[in-house]
Amino acid sequence: MGLHLNAQTPHRARDLQVPFDGTPGQFNAITDVPGVTVGHTTLISGDGKLERGVGPVRTGVTAILPRGAANPAPVFAASFSQNGNGEMTGTAWVEESGFATSPIMITNTHSVGVVRDTVIKWQLREADKAHRPMQPWSLPIVAETWDGFLNDINGFHVKEEHVFAALDNAKSGPVQEGAVGGGTGMICYGFKGGIGTSSRKLPDANGGYTVGVLVQCNCGRRQQLLIAGVPVGKEIGGQGPYGMNIAPNGQELGSIIIIVATDAPLVSQQLKRLTHRATMGLARTGSVSGNGSGDLFLAFSTANEAAGGPEGGPVRELKMLTNDAMDPLFEATVEATEEAIVNAMVGAETMTGIDGHTAMGLPRDQLVQVLKKYNRIAH
Amino acid sequence: MGLHLNAQTPHRARDLQVPFDGTPGQFNAITDVPGVTVGHTTLISGDGKLERGVGPVRTGVTAILPRGAANPAPVFAASFSQNGNGEMTGTAWVEESGFATSPIMITNTHSVGVVRDTVIKWQLREADKAHRPMQPWSLPIVAETWDGFLNDINGFHVKEEHVFAALDNAKSGPVQEGAVGGGTGMICYGFKGGIGTSSRKLPDANGGYTVGVLVQCNCGRRQQLLIAGVPVGKEIGGQGPYGMNIAPNGQELGSIIIIVATDAPLVSQQLKRLTHRATMGLARTGSVSGNGSGDLFLAFSTANEAAGGPEGGPVRELKMLTNDAMDPLFEATVEATEEAIVNAMVGAETMTGIDGHTAMGLPRDQLVQVLKKYNRIAH
Amino acid sequence: MGLHLNAQTPHRARDLQVPFDGTPGQFNAITDVPGVTVGHTTLISGDGKLERGVGPVRTGVTAILPRGAANPAPVFAASFSQNGNGEMTGTAWVEESGFATSPIMITNTHSVGVVRDTVIKWQLREADKAHRPMQPWSLPIVAETWDGFLNDINGFHVKEEHVFAALDNAKSGPVQEGAVGGGTGMICYGFKGGIGTSSRKLPDANGGYTVGVLVQCNCGRRQQLLIAGVPVGKEIGGQGPYGMNIAPNGQELGSIIIIVATDAPLVSQQLKRLTHRATMGLARTGSVSGNGSGDLFLAFSTANEAAGGPEGGPVRELKMLTNDAMDPLFEATVEATEEAIVNAMVGAETMTGIDGHTAMGLPRDQLVQVLKKYNRIAH
Amino acid sequence: MGLHLNAQTPHRARDLQVPFDGTPGQFNAITDVPGVTVGHTTLISGDGKLERGVGPVRTGVTAILPRGAANPAPVFAASFSQNGNGEMTGTAWVEESGFATSPIMITNTHSVGVVRDTVIKWQLREADKAHRPMQPWSLPIVAETWDGFLNDINGFHVKEEHVFAALDNAKSGPVQEGAVGGGTGMICYGFKGGIGTSSRKLPDANGGYTVGVLVQCNCGRRQQLLIAGVPVGKEIGGQGPYGMNIAPNGQELGSIIIIVATDAPLVSQQLKRLTHRATMGLARTGSVSGNGSGDLFLAFSTANEAAGGPEGGPVRELKMLTNDAMDPLFEATVEATEEAIVNAMVGAETMTGIDGHTAMGLPRDQLVQVLKKYNRIAH
Repeated sequence: MGLHLNAQTPHRARDLQVPFDGTPGQFNAITDVPGVTVGHTTLISGDGKLERGVGPVRTGVTAILPRGAANPAPVFAASFSQNGNGEMTGTAWVEESGFATSPIMITNTHSVGVVRDTVIKWQLREADKAHRPMQPWSLPIVAETWDGFLNDINGFHVKEEHVFAALDNAKSGPVQEGAVGGGTGMICYGFKGGIGTSSRKLPDANGGYTVGVLVQCNCGRRQQLLIAGVPVGKEIGGQGPYGMNIAPNGQELGSIIIIVATDAPLVSQQLKRLTHRATMGLARTGSVSGNGSGDLFLAFSTANEAAGGPEGGPVRELKMLTNDAMDPLFEATVEATEEAIVNAMVGAETMTGIDGHTAMGLPRDQLVQVLKKYNRIAH
Repeated sequence: MGLHLNAQTPHRARDLQVPFDGTPGQFNAITDVPGVTVGHTTLISGDGKLERGVGPVRTGVTAILPRGAANPAPVFAASFSQNGNGEMTGTAWVEESGFATSPIMITNTHSVGVVRDTVIKWQLREADKAHRPMQPWSLPIVAETWDGFLNDINGFHVKEEHVFAALDNAKSGPVQEGAVGGGTGMICYGFKGGIGTSSRKLPDANGGYTVGVLVQCNCGRRQQLLIAGVPVGKEIGGQGPYGMNIAPNGQELGSIIIIVATDAPLVSQQLKRLTHRATMGLARTGSVSGNGSGDLFLAFSTANEAAGGPEGGPVRELKMLTNDAMDPLFEATVEATEEAIVNAMVGAETMTGIDGHTAMGLPRDQLVQVLKKYNRIAH
Repeated sequence: MGLHLNAQTPHRARDLQVPFDGTPGQFNAITDVPGVTVGHTTLISGDGKLERGVGPVRTGVTAILPRGAANPAPVFAASFSQNGNGEMTGTAWVEESGFATSPIMITNTHSVGVVRDTVIKWQLREADKAHRPMQPWSLPIVAETWDGFLNDINGFHVKEEHVFAALDNAKSGPVQEGAVGGGTGMICYGFKGGIGTSSRKLPDANGGYTVGVLVQCNCGRRQQLLIAGVPVGKEIGGQGPYGMNIAPNGQELGSIIIIVATDAPLVSQQLKRLTHRATMGLARTGSVSGNGSGDLFLAFSTANEAAGGPEGGPVRELKMLTNDAMDPLFEATVEATEEAIVNAMVGAETMTGIDGHTAMGLPRDQLVQVLKKYNRIAH
Repeated sequence: MGLHLNAQTPHRARDLQVPFDGTPGQFNAITDVPGVTVGHTTLISGDGKLERGVGPVRTGVTAILPRGAANPAPVFAASFSQNGNGEMTGTAWVEESGFATSPIMITNTHSVGVVRDTVIKWQLREADKAHRPMQPWSLPIVAETWDGFLNDINGFHVKEEHVFAALDNAKSGPVQEGAVGGGTGMICYGFKGGIGTSSRKLPDANGGYTVGVLVQCNCGRRQQLLIAGVPVGKEIGGQGPYGMNIAPNGQELGSIIIIVATDAPLVSQQLKRLTHRATMGLARTGSVSGNGSGDLFLAFSTANEAAGGPEGGPVRELKMLTNDAMDPLFEATVEATEEAIVNAMVGAETMTGIDGHTAMGLPRDQLVQVLKKYNRIAH
């Protein structure tokens, strides 16, 4: 039901006049990078007391396909662990080869395995459908954050069909945000969080490239939250129910996955540089990458489609942006990461999950009031 | 059947007078490190033509429990990717925290996911059994190599019960080698390979520590194989059926997982140093870490049992060996890695799998003859 | 002369009521970590047109001695390259051993070598003085940023005696900031920058540890500058002379070195974690780590004095904070980094160097006005 | 004098029928990669008792210019620390940018600084000579090993003019080996070592690329030495004077620098892969990368000359070999590294240095006898 409302009246940070630098693309989403598609499977069922294996269920799967389902050509890619209390499978090969060779999936911590093996089954089906040989092996990329405050995470509710659905539903255009897909049960700075996205379109003088970011935001303490540099978390902190990604010992259990896409012609060593800027966008929202936070990032470029696939000879022709020309991409990554995180909160509604645990949606009217108090409302 | 014979008449490299440096522990196995247990589930069924989802099946799971099943206390650990064409889940947290907090599992490439999620289920069951709380999240360590030359790898034959069995069967003492557990369908330097293990016991003057190594060996081309420095692969290369971890484009599809255990009091930064020496042991057997080879290593120390668990205050007392005292551990790691790889081959029998593919066991009598030709037989 | 005034009337961000989180130590300086000493040699001479080898000279050397000059015992340490367009010698051994075994020096880009070799000469002299053997080799830690907008950097004006002086002058207590030592000719966000420092003292409930940070700040564009989340750079950007760490092609030539010290008992893997939080403190001031910016960080712990030196047997007794207890240290690192950067600017006066190039000091009264405009003045 | 003889009658491993795999280039040297030049300055003076600052002197500098002195265009490059007890300056920028932008220098441990700053002076002179602007900053690449057993290393005998000489003398064609340049005072596996080089030329079917390796070999214990897999060190170990890169506490003080050059069109992520194979070539000669050994490697590609320099627009056209085609380059790197190390020993004569310390040259006739004993002489 929250999902239903959300689909009809999506809220985004810019609608609330939160000020951001830079110029977004058409949808202000990772899908502004041509070819990128995103699909969600959202699993919401049950209420009340936790019964392991039964529910309540507040979880899901999100799929990002760098070139869409029909085009499995590898993309140059790189990953970075800002704080490795998390999982992103497939990164050993990303780091070694410089390429991502699978869809990029995000789910809950305890469902990484089923998503991972199912991606291989989906790749087999796709290869069969297209009458092309599957490469003999696959090393899928699957990341996660922890939704056990709201979701029966030890019930293992993500099944093969949910993974197929996320992959099969992936499309370009607007991307659902908030409590959807892998982000369904997530909590961000003590408010309901989940999936957020944003993009930046560079001026033609800087190549006209697009940078798109998608986050699954589950990190941070309410007191830490900064929006547009304003201490929003301290101002709203005292109110309403806290979503608590907090263990009995007081440590965070949250995390954030940040995926950066671009059509700028970057090779893997340069995409690694973008991942280091994801940290900076995250930092602007107040996080200190708490010990319990798995802050894992991946960046890819859709340029150079012929660089990594089986077609073509042993020597490939590439285009590569010079390092000297990367500053606008760094700015775009920082800005789009910051905005995607705020979008993840603004786009989410209050949710109640297991044992009556409730994560309050960021009160949008109060956010506006706080921004005004600090003279930080966009004009 | 091969398994049955193997269990009765295990063959090891030292039985064939292959010369190695250093002094092994009691079982010349990773289990010589006190507390370490190893369990295998071996899946062999069917013959003849490959039918996806039916078989033939030549695969399995191997479990290494650093302190045995009853003791989940973390161990200091570190990982290394010598060539990252493979998967080892859980390493982001190993690298970040300095600890391994789960059993270490090895299986085939396409079954990593099911093994990973099932480890969490097993941990839940163990915590329930012991009436202790499960930590809220788990990031299991699961590695793999590719067995698709002999096994119906896209049939996904590893199931939850096989993972539970490997974990529940884990024990100290002698370790089965060759075509068992995760190594069942593996091929090493063009001969039948799989699981191998070895250990070194340092003199008391060097602390009396033990270093144990377990490998799942699936790498290399026959022409490359060196044993005790002798070009065994070139000498025996021309004979018998080749196991071919070779793709249509000629690249290797093999890999090697190397797990190093020790009771020396090393912290994670020092265990990283051991992983770099695993490369050197591998190199002595002739590998060049081919592009298609996922050469992923992990080292752990069973010392400092109270360092990483929830019991105890915020400051823990540790013991740490000085860096200056590590050379004997480096030598032990190189030597035990080299011997474990040779044991993986010497311990394996000829196996036929899908579509009649056959991997020839290393002919032991010919190995002895070649060593004699080069005056490299131990006395 | 600027130096003279500076010494009499030091300005710090807190004096201007810039709001910061957390509680600083006694001097709000890296020297609040017991044992840490800091020394500067500041070289200012000449005016007018650049004559290579003659001047004008605006450069220097800063020395940080983790345990003071009399105590060469290694400290646990780790380094991180957020953007590696810079130099920090000695880090291969820091990363390998987990220890820093030399003073930590900061100078200009083209004087790293002379500083590096001279540290060895100073170590020889100190060992001779103390009648103890010098270890046979030394791998000093020397970092840099680029001061060629104000300084005759290709004149190589830093000499051995200046290195000795910085080391010999090092002391505990207040630390000079702004245009001193290695920071003499530096420019930060288009304002005069240089050396800045800050510290945080944790509550006793969190162990009572101190985290101290020292930066040599030479990075950023004026438009990017954020102070306490307020877009100060945009507000003051249009005024006065720009210090331009900008190459003809428009790329930044600036950089920032961040040194984090603590007395918390952290091992190297944990100190690495602190270096990742230095990025986050930097990000809060608006940087995106431009391509030309060498953003190199090092963290060390003065605890465990007996862990790394030649005295003692092969097994050392350590204390180690648990990872679960690190969040307050992460917060302290982010906060102290942010404040140290602002201190580097607030503490610096306008400077004119080669060819009449001028870098304007951050106008303090205007800073206060801008903070008031955004309701971000501390009370 | 040894130098004089050496120049007239160079000895190389192949002359002694040591068996190696693969086909070398014309000079069996790193200079077989078109454009690469090498220069040495060898400093030998004095005899007898060590007097700090006076001598005896047994040291020098070696320069490798990837495209020769006249062409400063950057080369794609990557570095790796197999065991970081050493120094290689400039690697932060190599790793960040993917390029090497300076000559690659090798000297003794305590002269890294003077060599580093002097490279900048040389670059200034070259830019002045060519009437082109020097880039505003430089981050030279300088590596080292320790020669304090034979050389007055704390006398700092390497001066600016020696650095200029090595750079100015660099040329293509045959490369002097053994006790020359940076390798003058080095000891390898307890025998006199120093500079060694080798190359491999791939078949046209594999692209016809050349891989060249140059090592400054100062590592290992005599008992460890393997040549062509034969335990040469054990066989000759008992004889003659030992060169001892051994500290009072028994740890190695040696190290090895390995530089890999190729004309194959590899980007930085792929060159990183070559550096991991340098470890494997080193391992074949018996090293375990002892704690005290700084085993630092760098690989570069001379292809794609227009990729990294200031000329050209923001998007460059590249050629890149596919990862699938890299196996022959991996084999070449392992083979050429192994052979370069043996050449470093075979090319060196017995040398006496400070305090009468003597390092025995590897007795060539005995080497041949040992190889024959193990039936490992090339035909």
